[in-house]
Amino acid sequence: MANEKKLVEAITSMDVDFAQWYTDVVKKAELIDYSSVKGCMVIKPAGYAIWENIQKELDKRFKETGVENVYMPIFIPESLLQKEKDHVEGFAPEVAWVTHGGLEPLQERMCVRPTSETLFCDFYARDIHSYRDLPRLYNQWCSVVRWEKTTRPFLRSREFLWQEGHTAHATAEEAEERTIQMLNLYADFCENVLAMPVIRGRKTDKEKFAGAEATYTIEALMHDGKALQSGTSHNFGDGFAKAFGIQFSDKDNKLKYVHQTSWGMTTRLIGAIIMVHGDDNGLVLPPAIAPTQVVIVPIQQKKEGVLDKAFELKEVLSNFRVKVDDSDKSPGWKFSESEMRGIPVRVEIGPRDIENKEAVLVRRDTHEKMTVSLAEIGEKVQELLDTIQKDMLERARKHRDQHTYTATTLEEFEKTVNEKPGFVKAMWCGCQECEDKIKELTGATSRCMPFKQEQISDKCVCCGKPATKMVYWGRAY
Amino acid sequence: MANEKKLVEAITSMDVDFAQWYTDVVKKAELIDYSSVKGCMVIKPAGYAIWENIQKELDKRFKETGVENVYMPIFIPESLLQKEKDHVEGFAPEVAWVTHGGLEPLQERMCVRPTSETLFCDFYARDIHSYRDLPRLYNQWCSVVRWEKTTRPFLRSREFLWQEGHTAHATAEEAEERTIQMLNLYADFCENVLAMPVIRGRKTDKEKFAGAEATYTIEALMHDGKALQSGTSHNFGDGFAKAFGIQFSDKDNKLKYVHQTSWGMTTRLIGAIIMVHGDDNGLVLPPAIAPTQVVIVPIQQKKEGVLDKAFELKEVLSNFRVKVDDSDKSPGWKFSESEMRGIPVRVEIGPRDIENKEAVLVRRDTHEKMTVSLAEIGEKVQELLDTIQKDMLERARKHRDQHTYTATTLEEFEKTVNEKPGFVKAMWCGCQECEDKIKELTGATSRCMPFKQEQISDKCVCCGKPATKMVYWGRAY
Repeated sequence: MANEKKLVEAITSMDVDFAQWYTDVVKKAELIDYSSVKGCMVIKPAGYAIWENIQKELDKRFKETGVENVYMPIFIPESLLQKEKDHVEGFAPEVAWVTHGGLEPLQERMCVRPTSETLFCDFYARDIHSYRDLPRLYNQWCSVVRWEKTTRPFLRSREFLWQEGHTAHATAEEAEERTIQMLNLYADFCENVLAMPVIRGRKTDKEKFAGAEATYTIEALMHDGKALQSGTSHNFGDGFAKAFGIQFSDKDNKLKYVHQTSWGMTTRLIGAIIMVHGDDNGLVLPPAIAPTQVVIVPIQQKKEGVLDKAFELKEVLSNFRVKVDDSDKSPGWKFSESEMRGIPVRVEIGPRDIENKEAVLVRRDTHEKMTVSLAEIGEKVQELLDTIQKDMLERARKHRDQHTYTATTLEEFEKTVNEKPGFVKAMWCGCQECEDKIKELTGATSRCMPFKQEQISDKCVCCGKPATKMVYWGRAY
Repeated sequence: MANEKKLVEAITSMDVDFAQWYTDVVKKAELIDYSSVKGCMVIKPAGYAIWENIQKELDKRFKETGVENVYMPIFIPESLLQKEKDHVEGFAPEVAWVTHGGLEPLQERMCVRPTSETLFCDFYARDIHSYRDLPRLYNQWCSVVRWEKTTRPFLRSREFLWQEGHTAHATAEEAEERTIQMLNLYADFCENVLAMPVIRGRKTDKEKFAGAEATYTIEALMHDGKALQSGTSHNFGDGFAKAFGIQFSDKDNKLKYVHQTSWGMTTRLIGAIIMVHGDDNGLVLPPAIAPTQVVIVPIQQKKEGVLDKAFELKEVLSNFRVKVDDSDKSPGWKFSESEMRGIPVRVEIGPRDIENKEAVLVRRDTHEKMTVSLAEIGEKVQELLDTIQKDMLERARKHRDQHTYTATTLEEFEKTVNEKPGFVKAMWCGCQECEDKIKELTGATSRCMPFKQEQISDKCVCCGKPATKMVYWGRAY
């Protein structure tokens, strides 16, 4: 049993060093590898397969709301990036610049897209003429580049994969409705597919997207008590439309500016899955997103009939994403490996099980074992996957709720942040000075002004002036 | 009927000006739009939906052969690009260079990937240690950049979308087998899904990929008699492995170099579909790849019951990709539009049809009309789609065969190329001087040395020396 020990020992315990645990999991579960390109990662098959499932699930949901996929150029000419003042200020410091094409210097340098608002606006300005052209509900799946100084796999890298939706509407109301609709779609996806509860709310002006009128966000709590912004949806009003001249002639024959939104989710979600569900044995994947939902491990596989039975079981379970591990490693090694990779259900089957017409099911999330009759293994696996999905969400919700605190004074706030990692709910007067001061003192930022407001006190936790909003605060990735 | 006329008149006839016809179709069928980024295009929903179907079909076929998807960085440091001598010579003149990250100049400039051999090799050198790690069968879907001087939508653009497969094997035989396997997969896909017949063969050394030992290709013939390289599969031997030091310890405990392949298909295929199947009414899409296979056009849709019936039919036909055009345009306009967009089958249904319990089916490819009973419309549509798919392939094959000529003298070769656009089959001695001379004289390049060789004569069509190969020649996109 030396082999599986070696595999397990290679992970740092999350209680000892959470950051190291995270790095160990992404490497040992073979999700990524570092590359020779600083700050960029290689996403390996086990990692990319998770992203493919995320794409499939999100894309289906987008299309159900009428969204169509398109593809915009990878480059943005500098003059285009500069058209919207706030936007260029937000992004110009962190883009990669292309200055030469082949052997020639470019007349105008271009950046590799950090996000594509300017390209969509440039296109919409040519493409939209009449109210009949609206709404435009476009999305693209692509990679973007932001020149980050410090990087971590999935959480912050110089290149990442994402989707960016960009819509144009005839009215402000419609744009606001779409902004909220997509935020809710994201939240439902996180909860129902990733088993990850999120707080829905609005960003403060300080934290909103460069160029947006309003940014909405979903915020999740990681196992170490730090927050992770997991998806954002922006209402641009007609700011970009005015900067780019995107006008349409309305039913009343008047020329009007469109109202726009954008919304995005990224490979960061894979980091969230790791940090919400993982444990000291490795990754724990929610069944709905797991590339392999069931692994069948034959015991004493060299004995006659065992491998045949394992592959027969694979057929029986073929409506799940199922694999047989028939490699020549020991069963113990296979157990550890399937745990490291987060496969939700393990089926163990050996000569004695076959004789008794049973198999052993093992849950990845709780390590619970149960013996089931082969006659009903299909139903039992289905039940177990459903239960795991449900329990993982509940467990994450409980952890989040147990690590959500309130504070009414700055002293209490600081003590909480320092001693009890998690969300802090506290009242805020609405001015940026208090936000800045809180960040400076505690390292916590405003995560969002939740849609579900609570009246914790009447006064701003920082300055004591009358409060206007309850805010979720926290240290964040 | 002025409206539909306007739409149709907007297309140049392909016999008058094929290049203009092509441009008209990509614009009027709303496949692409030009962008503010020179040489880059905006792929609009109707174009991107075709690409999504191509991706889905190819990806499924790749995975059935054991291929896994991954994602490599978008950038290649200059030193990495330079590791394989032929490769850098082939690509360095046509890459886009990133020289600044944020406000800082980079210590080493990087190019935006024109293809990712160097990145995969760099990764494999770290990732592969033992024969147990082989084969590695990886693929990625991404965009690549090549700094082309003259560009045309889908056919040649500075950025395009593609997949690139990169595999590593223990033996030369296995690598060659995979190279041919993927070429055959591509050919089957073109014929069975895109209804596009292709010639399978090997490229001459002059035309092979920079760094490859052998390049295999599938070549299709467009409606104007020009050839289009539609997919390539390369055997690298151990050349890249030696340049990058990709070694593994084999079963005999000896350290050996891996043998590698790569293979790719691109958004160029959309250009091929247009130029193989399109006509003067616009796009003609093979049913297997059409985003919408059936459009239902209600006639006199304001009459009671017509729209209801149209949507009822949509339900009946829901196992196809089906849409109802209930816009307030005239039926004639809708007919023209559905033809422009290449939808394979149109269903027309009006009050009289409803009374007679029938509908009219119209084939996009032949414009043939037939009246069918509503009771059996599901079967009839299925039959019709199958027939269209089959007929389109046959028609394209016939066109290709009718435009394939032979030549035994240079004079005959030149006359054929100038007067009868198409493939020319001619013998070749195997030396590059003759290839160069033929290109200089006629503009035709060697397309491939087909697997199915024929003995047209004993002598090279150019120099008259003994011939070693029969070659397909042609002017090409």
